[in-house]
Amino acid sequence: VAVKADVDAAALAANARRMLLEKTVGAIRDALREQCLACYQSCQRMALNHCLERGGRHVEPQHFRLMIDCAEICRTSAAFMLSGSPRHRLTCGVCAEVCRACADSCEQLGDMQDCVDACRACAQSCAEMAD
Amino acid sequence: VAVKADVDAAALAANARRMLLEKTVGAIRDALREQCLACYQSCQRMALNHCLERGGRHVEPQHFRLMIDCAEICRTSAAFMLSGSPRHRLTCGVCAEVCRACADSCEQLGDMQDCVDACRACAQSCAEMAD
Amino acid sequence: VAVKADVDAAALAANARRMLLEKTVGAIRDALREQCLACYQSCQRMALNHCLERGGRHVEPQHFRLMIDCAEICRTSAAFMLSGSPRHRLTCGVCAEVCRACADSCEQLGDMQDCVDACRACAQSCAEMAD
Amino acid sequence: VAVKADVDAAALAANARRMLLEKTVGAIRDALREQCLACYQSCQRMALNHCLERGGRHVEPQHFRLMIDCAEICRTSAAFMLSGSPRHRLTCGVCAEVCRACADSCEQLGDMQDCVDACRACAQSCAEMAD
Repeated sequence: VAVKADVDAAALAANARRMLLEKTVGAIRDALREQCLACYQSCQRMALNHCLERGGRHVEPQHFRLMIDCAEICRTSAAFMLSGSPRHRLTCGVCAEVCRACADSCEQLGDMQDCVDACRACAQSCAEMAD
Repeated sequence: VAVKADVDAAALAANARRMLLEKTVGAIRDALREQCLACYQSCQRMALNHCLERGGRHVEPQHFRLMIDCAEICRTSAAFMLSGSPRHRLTCGVCAEVCRACADSCEQLGDMQDCVDACRACAQSCAEMAD
Repeated sequence: VAVKADVDAAALAANARRMLLEKTVGAIRDALREQCLACYQSCQRMALNHCLERGGRHVEPQHFRLMIDCAEICRTSAAFMLSGSPRHRLTCGVCAEVCRACADSCEQLGDMQDCVDACRACAQSCAEMAD
Repeated sequence: VAVKADVDAAALAANARRMLLEKTVGAIRDALREQCLACYQSCQRMALNHCLERGGRHVEPQHFRLMIDCAEICRTSAAFMLSGSPRHRLTCGVCAEVCRACADSCEQLGDMQDCVDACRACAQSCAEMAD
């Protein structure tokens, strides 16, 4: 009887660990999805408002395309995280790279710190999640 | 001089009112965008996880298509609110109608209250914003 | 026997008419989806290439936002037509209105005739399909 | 004079080659974008019509999520090819991998040959374009 109780206790502990792990993984994925959507909103809003209103270097093709590409891949990465498949690791790799480039481009303009911060945060979290 | 001061005071008050109004309008639009994105996430996640895992009536074509349509129009309404144009009033009208239908469909299944709530909240706010 | 044959012939004819109607409706919807995707591609490509490279009036906020809004609603209208629901009639209404405004805006710039044509064609077909 | 004519001829030839190359690259990218949009439409339509109507293994979570993920990344890859940036090479890598998996999953169901073909064609072209 003592052996069986030990086995049961071990099984319960293993199950508890597994559930905790799943919960942690889910929480990390939820937090990352929030960062992707925050970065999508920052890029889309800043491009179509701040950048268009400032003009000049803010609508230089290379910078502006980067912001639109960044908004698009962030939105898609969030969609992959919602679908419950493990494939979000693939989109996260691309998202990290595009967000990093977008952060650099925004930084050079000097008046887009909110967007720089959103891109850097998203890039770092996505890089950790990527394959 | 007294007259000029009165005019200045009136101009300042008018300006303050205008700025307050703009700020209020912006805050309402931001709150609505959050509701649209919350509803998008709820529908997309529930359809591709809860509904697919339950099967049966949860993957009945009419219900499932409604959830996917609702996710799509909520995401697009949020995009219109980010672009800074007044055209989000158009997408909000469609969004309100689709969200209402989706809430009804989810309600009949009995175990999707979170999605019902997200759809109802989004539908009501969108209806107020729509033309 | 003669009566039964008449009834059968009438049923067959009714069925043939119904199938022909369904096929026609499907073909019209497919053609419209193609127009929406063509307009999406035209607006997205012209905005991020032609307009950004020209600068000046081509990146004036009202014009540029309109092109991005138009690309987004065209893409979403196409998505609704793919889902097999009758709700594409709702998005078609918005799509018609946004495409019409975008065609007008492109026309004033004088060097965007391809985009004008894509928007006008999509606007007209969407208007016919809309509720 | 003869030397200068030789130099001019060489410069003209180099320019002609460069223009031909740019035109070829553009044509390849346009063809790939068409394949991505064709695959998007095939997956989105088949998932929300054929699969939902058949039920059973067609709405098994792993298969259905794959189709929705595939539709999403194909649509996003097309968007990146429209933006005129070189970053479409990144999304093409993910697109190739997801399309390949989706083709395999559709093949096992036995009655989705159109979708298999669209996914295989898109996967192959995207793989060639990817970094």
